[in-house]
Amino acid sequence: MTEDFQFTLQATDGMARRGQIDTPRGEIRTPAFMPVGTAGTVKALYPEQVRETGADILLGNTYHLMLRPGAERVARLGGLHDFMDWQRPILTDSGGFQVMSLSKLRKLNEDGVTFKSHIDGSAHTLTPERSIEIQKLLDSDIIMQLDECVALPAEYAELERAMELSIRWAERSKKAFDDAKGRALFGIVQGGDNSELRARSARGLIDIGFDGYSVGGLAVGEPQEVMFKVLEDITPHLPVEKPRYLMGVGKPDDLLGAVGRGIDMFDCVHPTRAGRHGHAYTRFGVINLKNARHKDDPRPLDETSPNPTARRFSRAYLHHLVRCEEILAAMILSQINLSYYQELMAGMRSAIEDTRFDDHCAAIREGWARGDLPTIE
Amino acid sequence: MTEDFQFTLQATDGMARRGQIDTPRGEIRTPAFMPVGTAGTVKALYPEQVRETGADILLGNTYHLMLRPGAERVARLGGLHDFMDWQRPILTDSGGFQVMSLSKLRKLNEDGVTFKSHIDGSAHTLTPERSIEIQKLLDSDIIMQLDECVALPAEYAELERAMELSIRWAERSKKAFDDAKGRALFGIVQGGDNSELRARSARGLIDIGFDGYSVGGLAVGEPQEVMFKVLEDITPHLPVEKPRYLMGVGKPDDLLGAVGRGIDMFDCVHPTRAGRHGHAYTRFGVINLKNARHKDDPRPLDETSPNPTARRFSRAYLHHLVRCEEILAAMILSQINLSYYQELMAGMRSAIEDTRFDDHCAAIREGWARGDLPTIE
Repeated sequence: MTEDFQFTLQATDGMARRGQIDTPRGEIRTPAFMPVGTAGTVKALYPEQVRETGADILLGNTYHLMLRPGAERVARLGGLHDFMDWQRPILTDSGGFQVMSLSKLRKLNEDGVTFKSHIDGSAHTLTPERSIEIQKLLDSDIIMQLDECVALPAEYAELERAMELSIRWAERSKKAFDDAKGRALFGIVQGGDNSELRARSARGLIDIGFDGYSVGGLAVGEPQEVMFKVLEDITPHLPVEKPRYLMGVGKPDDLLGAVGRGIDMFDCVHPTRAGRHGHAYTRFGVINLKNARHKDDPRPLDETSPNPTARRFSRAYLHHLVRCEEILAAMILSQINLSYYQELMAGMRSAIEDTRFDDHCAAIREGWARGDLPTIE
Repeated sequence: MTEDFQFTLQATDGMARRGQIDTPRGEIRTPAFMPVGTAGTVKALYPEQVRETGADILLGNTYHLMLRPGAERVARLGGLHDFMDWQRPILTDSGGFQVMSLSKLRKLNEDGVTFKSHIDGSAHTLTPERSIEIQKLLDSDIIMQLDECVALPAEYAELERAMELSIRWAERSKKAFDDAKGRALFGIVQGGDNSELRARSARGLIDIGFDGYSVGGLAVGEPQEVMFKVLEDITPHLPVEKPRYLMGVGKPDDLLGAVGRGIDMFDCVHPTRAGRHGHAYTRFGVINLKNARHKDDPRPLDETSPNPTARRFSRAYLHHLVRCEEILAAMILSQINLSYYQELMAGMRSAIEDTRFDDHCAAIREGWARGDLPTIE
C-alpha cells in the first residue's frame, strides 16, 4: 500500500505497456479493464463477485450519482466505497459525457453546463469546480476533469472550439483539485479525429500537468480504424511515465488494438449490458444464447474456461433462463462477460511481460474467427 | 442418506410437530419452508445462495416447466437437479393449480384438463397420469397428484364435485406413480372451507394411501381465520406418521399459525416476489425500502440478524437500489427474505424441541408488533 498515487511502467512490447498503479486503496494492474458501476452497483453482481472476476478497480458515473442518490448524501453515508461496499479503488468520470448523451435541455457556456435530469426534469449545473467537488464527495480515487465531448463526424472548427474549452476547463479542474492527497486527477485529450488538434490538446494538458491522461471523444460512432488511427497519433505525445485511459471502450477486439497502441486503462458498460441481453463473451467470440441452436445443448459455454461459472451451466439451461427473462440469466452472463474481459486483460499483461504480445493477440483473434462450437446433431 | 423416502416425527409441542424427512437426495428438517423455483431458478439467487439461506428442499412448478423448456427436454438434459444445479430434494406440484390461475381457455372433464399456454397459446393436456409422468421426467423427489382447486368462496355442490373428482384423480395418480423407488407421492386434501368435505377427502386419500398429505385449496382468497379453522378441523384426520404440506402458504404469520396447527411443510413465492418489489422481511416485520424515510439512514436492516447480508448494506443504499430498480436490489432483498423465512422455521423447530413453541411465537409476534426502528432525526 502506498499513501499516494503512483504509476510504474514494468515492461513494454512494441507500443503495448505492462504496468501497475498504486493507490492507498490497492494496486491496479495495467492494462486494466474497469467494470462500470453506474449507479453504485455493477449491475447484477455483488461487489465480491466483481472482485472475483479479477477487477482491481471499478468506475462510478458522476452524472447518475449526483442525481441519485446525490453526492452530498453519499458523502454523509461515508463515500461511495462504503455505500456500495467496494473497498478497492474507484475512478469517477466528470459527468460531462452523460450530460451530453442523457440529459435534456442542456446549455453549455464558458462557465460550465446546465441541464435537466433525465429522471425527474430537475435542473442542475456542472462546472469544472463542481465536478471535482462531487467526485471528492464521492471519495473517488481517480478523478476526471470536466470536458466537452463532440460526437463524430464533426467540423474542424467545432472540434477545435470544444478542445480549447476543455483545456481551459482542465486548468480550472487542476486548481479545484488542489493536489488532494492520495487521489489522482486525469486530464482528457480531445480533438476528435484530427491529429493536429489531438496533439495540441495533449500539449496543453501536459503543460498543466496531470497524474494521468485520458483519451476522450472516441467510441462515439466512428469506425474502429479511425479510433486506432487517433490512438497511433496521440500516444507518442503522451508522457511515458503516466497512465493512459481510453474512455468508454470497448469490445474485446477494441481492447487488443488499443493496448497494442499504448493504452493502459479501459471502461465500458458493454460486457454487463450484453449479458443482460443474453450475449456471452468467450474464446469462441460472442455467443447469442437466445438462439434456438442452444436449446438442447448439454455442453457448457466453454468447458476449458478458467471461470467456473462458464463451465457450470449447460447452454440449454442458459438459453432457457434467457428465454424466460430470468434475473439469474443477467447475473450469470454479466459475471461470465466480466470474467472474460478480465481474462483478456490478464492474458495481455502476461504476453507483454514475455514480449509475445502480437502472437498472443493473433491467437486470441484466431479463436474468435473460428467461432462457436459446431451444433450437436 | 436413505434409499427410500421416510418421515420421522421427533418431537411435538401441542399440535406443532418437529420432524425429519429422509430422501436419497438428503434430509429435510420439518417444519420446512420450500423456496419456489418456478422456471428452474429461485428468482435472483444462485442455487448455492438458496442453500446458504438454510433451505433443504425447493419447489419446481410443473406447469411452467412443461411449457418451457418442456419435461422431455429436462429429462434428456439429466433432470431438473442437474439442469439448475440443485442437488438436494425437489418437490414438484402437479400443474393443476397454475392451469387454473394462469392458462387460457381451459376445459376440465373426468379425464383431465386441456388448456392453452399463457406464453404462446399452444394447446396442452394434463391428466393425472401425464402429470405424474412429467414429474418423473423432471426427476422430482416429492410428487403431487393432480387435483382440482376451487377458489373460495364457493357453493357446497361445487366444492363436493371438485373434491370427489380429486379423489378419483388421486387413485389414478397412485396407479401411475407405481411406487417409484426413492420418490414420494402426496395426496391433496380438498373440500374448501367445509369441514365435512375436508374430512371425507382425507378419508378417501388415506384409503388409497400416500407418503404424505397436502392441504390444497387454501390461500385462495379466504381470510386467515378461515384457513386456520380448516387446518384445525383437518389435521386430526391426517395420519400422525406422514408429513403434512400446506400448499402455497404464506406470510410469516401464516407459517407460525399453521405450524401451531400441525403442518410440516410450506412453499410460497411471497418472499422472493416481495423482495423484487422492495420489501424486506425482518424481526421488525416487513419494511418497505421504497419509503423515503430510509434515504439517509446509515443503519443496516437489522444489525443483530444472523444473516450477514441483512447486516451488510445500509438502508440508504438499499433504498437507492430499489429506487433505481437495480437488479442487485432484487438479489439482496430476495436473499434477505428467504433467509428470514428459514430463520423463522429454524426458530420454530428449536422451540418445538424445547416445548416452548407458544412462548416463542408470542415473542416473534411481539417483535413484529413493535415494528421498525424509529426514524433517525
